[in-house]
Amino acid sequence: MAKGGSKRALRGRAGRMQGGRGSGRASSGQIRLWGRHAVEAALKNPQRSHHKLWATREGIASLDGELPETFPIEYAEVADLARLVSRDAPHQGLVLECAPLEDLHLGDVLETPSEGPLLILDHVTDPHNVGAILRSASAFGAAAIITQDRHAPPESGVVAKSASGALETVPWVRVVNLARALDDIAAAGYWRIGMAGEAEATFSQALPAGRVALVMGAEGGGMRPNIAAHCDALARLPISNAIESLNVSNAAAIALYAIATR
Amino acid sequence: MAKGGSKRALRGRAGRMQGGRGSGRASSGQIRLWGRHAVEAALKNPQRSHHKLWATREGIASLDGELPETFPIEYAEVADLARLVSRDAPHQGLVLECAPLEDLHLGDVLETPSEGPLLILDHVTDPHNVGAILRSASAFGAAAIITQDRHAPPESGVVAKSASGALETVPWVRVVNLARALDDIAAAGYWRIGMAGEAEATFSQALPAGRVALVMGAEGGGMRPNIAAHCDALARLPISNAIESLNVSNAAAIALYAIATR
Repeated sequence: MAKGGSKRALRGRAGRMQGGRGSGRASSGQIRLWGRHAVEAALKNPQRSHHKLWATREGIASLDGELPETFPIEYAEVADLARLVSRDAPHQGLVLECAPLEDLHLGDVLETPSEGPLLILDHVTDPHNVGAILRSASAFGAAAIITQDRHAPPESGVVAKSASGALETVPWVRVVNLARALDDIAAAGYWRIGMAGEAEATFSQALPAGRVALVMGAEGGGMRPNIAAHCDALARLPISNAIESLNVSNAAAIALYAIATR
Repeated sequence: MAKGGSKRALRGRAGRMQGGRGSGRASSGQIRLWGRHAVEAALKNPQRSHHKLWATREGIASLDGELPETFPIEYAEVADLARLVSRDAPHQGLVLECAPLEDLHLGDVLETPSEGPLLILDHVTDPHNVGAILRSASAFGAAAIITQDRHAPPESGVVAKSASGALETVPWVRVVNLARALDDIAAAGYWRIGMAGEAEATFSQALPAGRVALVMGAEGGGMRPNIAAHCDALARLPISNAIESLNVSNAAAIALYAIATR
């Protein structure tokens, strides 16, 4: 698919360089991101505090943009990088240690004018799925994704790799109480549609003209009853009886597409 | 989401019981499937030759249907099962050793009357993606998926788990030469649409009224030029400039939804 091709300089706000090498875990409080898209997007994100980049020569050459001369790079071999990340992680010659992003507040997102949908994830815990959902959220202009603090994956290399850069650009709000957040979202003028396989209406039938908050439940169990009770409508995707459900990131992608093209 | 709830008996055509336990690898020529949906669907598939089922009591209880009394079950603890499958595989108390499915021929699929689309994957190698694509193909009534023999994952536990049962029900044809297969597909009356991020037409604009063969390229590189040249039209999904592309299984899900709801 076509390449974005922005040539803006890669930023680097490096912190202290300490420990970490060979431990397979990042220094305390830091996370490690890997893969070209994830690392490039993190380097370009002014909100991201960078710590250190381990890279092969080829990894650096693959980056779209220039790193400042003072950026803390340690050149390494492919096998060295493999020891810095989780098993079989496809690092593509780039491993970045950096701080997690600052917490975002739901109120700030709701006050920011946006026609894009909100995407609320109830107990979606697989980091690959959350990453792929961030990627689709970016592709279809979602205003934010919202998860419950305790039942969602933390920011991580797996999420970032699956998000292919979107972890840096799609606002991700973590809330303590998802039901209360849904109240606030309704008060802000969003129509809350919960995806539920047993619903009567199809998703395209349930879509209003205005702003939409899409609520999706966990793989397997679906939304919790209290979360479904906080939706204005429930809707299903028109799938055959041959299968119980879609993968949650696939369902999210379809719903976001349907909203974007209504 | 709603449960299918078919109560038909789980079939069991067990072969010889040999070796394998604790090796982490299946006996020669056999594969291991795990997870409730994948194992249950494999047990219900009359085309599947079963070898042995390792399971916890809870795993057996979770199955929808009854196993024949003669079926070779070995009860095991969760930790025992973990040693039978790849690291961190979510086996849900069920590990089935069985034979791979018999090869399918493209000609047989093309001669079977079906209004469902064909889905051709060019060098999509990630088994999670291929599994998720099988799941969406089942959900939206695809007639078959078609991959190139040498550049697609083999049947495996990861594919089966991601497919959530669809590995047993969606015909999967492996061909030696994908370009030649596309010729045969055109001759059978399908309009071949290749997904390409740089295409001018959007997918919904490119959709004809008749039968569709959807062609998708690898994560990253996209379709190879010779494969794109064998399409009747190229089309893109209407994504923003914020991201280079969608995850390939997410893009496939959207395209299959768009075909099913056109």
